Amino acid sequence: MPEFFNVLPPDEARALLMQHLTAVLPGETIPTESALGRVTGTSLLAPHPLPAFRRSTMDGYAVRAADTYGASGSLPAFLSVTGEVPMGRKAGVELGPGQAVVVHTGGMIPQTADAVVQVELTQIIGADPDAQPPFEIEVFKAVASGENVLQVGEDVQPGAQILPQGHLLRPQDLGGLLALGIMSLVVTRRPHVAILATGDEVVPPQQEAGPGEIRDINSYTVAGQVSEAGGIPILAGIVSDDLHALNNAAMDALAEADMLVMSAGSSVSVRDMTVQVIEQLGEPGVLFHGVATRPGKPTIVGVVSGKPVLGLPGNPVSAMVQFDMFGVPSIYRLQGLKTRPRRGLVWARVSQNIASQSGREDYVPARLEETPGGLSATPVFGKSNLIYTLVNADGLIKVPLNKGGLLAGDLVEVRLF
Amino acid sequence: MPEFFNVLPPDEARALLMQHLTAVLPGETIPTESALGRVTGTSLLAPHPLPAFRRSTMDGYAVRAADTYGASGSLPAFLSVTGEVPMGRKAGVELGPGQAVVVHTGGMIPQTADAVVQVELTQIIGADPDAQPPFEIEVFKAVASGENVLQVGEDVQPGAQILPQGHLLRPQDLGGLLALGIMSLVVTRRPHVAILATGDEVVPPQQEAGPGEIRDINSYTVAGQVSEAGGIPILAGIVSDDLHALNNAAMDALAEADMLVMSAGSSVSVRDMTVQVIEQLGEPGVLFHGVATRPGKPTIVGVVSGKPVLGLPGNPVSAMVQFDMFGVPSIYRLQGLKTRPRRGLVWARVSQNIASQSGREDYVPARLEETPGGLSATPVFGKSNLIYTLVNADGLIKVPLNKGGLLAGDLVEVRLF
Repeated sequence: MPEFFNVLPPDEARALLMQHLTAVLPGETIPTESALGRVTGTSLLAPHPLPAFRRSTMDGYAVRAADTYGASGSLPAFLSVTGEVPMGRKAGVELGPGQAVVVHTGGMIPQTADAVVQVELTQIIGADPDAQPPFEIEVFKAVASGENVLQVGEDVQPGAQILPQGHLLRPQDLGGLLALGIMSLVVTRRPHVAILATGDEVVPPQQEAGPGEIRDINSYTVAGQVSEAGGIPILAGIVSDDLHALNNAAMDALAEADMLVMSAGSSVSVRDMTVQVIEQLGEPGVLFHGVATRPGKPTIVGVVSGKPVLGLPGNPVSAMVQFDMFGVPSIYRLQGLKTRPRRGLVWARVSQNIASQSGREDYVPARLEETPGGLSATPVFGKSNLIYTLVNADGLIKVPLNKGGLLAGDLVEVRLF
Repeated sequence: MPEFFNVLPPDEARALLMQHLTAVLPGETIPTESALGRVTGTSLLAPHPLPAFRRSTMDGYAVRAADTYGASGSLPAFLSVTGEVPMGRKAGVELGPGQAVVVHTGGMIPQTADAVVQVELTQIIGADPDAQPPFEIEVFKAVASGENVLQVGEDVQPGAQILPQGHLLRPQDLGGLLALGIMSLVVTRRPHVAILATGDEVVPPQQEAGPGEIRDINSYTVAGQVSEAGGIPILAGIVSDDLHALNNAAMDALAEADMLVMSAGSSVSVRDMTVQVIEQLGEPGVLFHGVATRPGKPTIVGVVSGKPVLGLPGNPVSAMVQFDMFGVPSIYRLQGLKTRPRRGLVWARVSQNIASQSGREDYVPARLEETPGGLSATPVFGKSNLIYTLVNADGLIKVPLNKGGLLAGDLVEVRLF
């Protein structure tokens, strides 16, 4: 343990770095359809309600609910179907008492109707199921007012915040924006990350490595990590272990970039040189030198005029682990993200009971929350017609095929998207 | 449950689709440095060993191990340091008995040396720590032959398979290839996925949606999912609910693409039309119609001449969930991936004890395996100098700061990269 006395624990080290990264990169306006993976530069409000008109969630008949009260299989209600609302058209018809009109899933509901009866719960009188209105139907089940109808603004209310500032844009977020006609938006600029390899022994990968020489790997592995985090890598070349050369190369690279990574050798003298270079670049300079991790203890982290500057160990495994620990969060922070985005599959405990049906695999949108006991998943109940159900969710809880539901506290698979 | 009698369980449905997707897209040769996220089209072999020469893993002295036998703090061994191996140079010197040379981390070991003594375990006789050789040193600890030395081929043996066919390329894989001078490689083509929106009510998002109309969302959410899975989305436009128009549009779109997605309305008549269109596109046509999931039961899945054709429900939540269930695996399969890649953080049980040190956060490379009891993580022990330690790993097990290690069976966080 003694060798770790003078180094920071990783969480503390990262927190210190983040404290110094307060300025988010400036925003730029881009088309919504090309904004996947970018971060919102402003919060966004709904310009109008969604849906903008009352829509049916079923194939069936728009009715006045009161006309179906008491209807059952043995005592059906009789209604006169006077017409049809075609998809994509305004529902111009008026319903008198005892009247109904044909509506399709997603179709508009006439103003005088307040519910929809599912076609499976009705029967056309006179046997021809392909009859065109007018015709008469029997209704075998009463519907309540509002049943099978999406109300105006049920997905989003006008003026509501649809996305906060600093939000990583996922496919459903683009859908949610486009549904409201928001064709462009302000996102933060992607950080340019300059990567400088140092070492007398390092040669470019296209070059034959002679005795004592090795090909540059770290520039390319770190460049891949930069790309995956949303940054733009700039390969700034290979510099020899010479303080003056390194100073100049670092200054030039940092001037052109939002962040600088030096993949230094691992020998003590080279590390000392990296510290000197960062100190000479500007204020505040080196924040810490050494982290209580393995691999990667001799990592050097600094900030110069708000730009992160990292000195990574030369070993490829250490370099990748340390870049993941300090570089990736820096790239996210420069883009304005508050926490590291999670993707893929995670396990979490459900915070409440979720009913399901055995023989069916259910996917329930859910929000995730970090708790002292681990991740907690809370269902976001919403109709599958509502895009904002997904915008407001972090992922989907899977209710397995042969379970009748989940109990609060169950450990479940959550697919993040 | 009766409504689910005629539909397939999701796993069975996906397996049926995968059985029909046997042909991987053809390969193309691209530069290694731009191959992040692509899939190998061939397996790749090491053209030479890595490292190509014996390297030091420490700053210190290259020695003949036998000269240090029995050395201790109270009874040091005395050695004559005759020179230094500069970084990036061939170690030309010969060591006679009782001789040593200065080496740096990553530097070449002279042929007559077989171990390295860490500088911290030595002392220069005569007090000046900045002395230039020749000088004498005391060695306070014996080293074994091979200690602190990376052997030729310890990372990769010549001729060894470094990556299999059908492997998703990550940052460390690019590093591994470039370390061996492999500057380009064959990857499978990215699948072109045509997306066709259908519905009389659907208008492009830039258009004002009138009463009864809605803006197209699904084309854009699905396009985002296609991009994230490595495909190239092609927005094929919006078609009205007309069999002839839909037929023509589907045929044109499929001719230009490797996969077709129709985001249809949800009404029964529109679903029937999608089935007819897929059947008319070619053989084998519709594989199944309906999946035991919610949301998304009315999904239609077919294959036409080896190309997947999906009919998604019109509801945005259903469309995304179903595309994730059938579309994303299809895109991976067309690229030659056998399983869905995992990214991000997962939890797994360690398969064996892992020693660590309290006060330090350790990251241990590990391979993941699916077992009946959940994910299992097996450490891949390897020096952090070895890029193939990471190439051969699926991720890193985190050993928390205040634990002295992990026991077999412990549930641990694994960061996939």
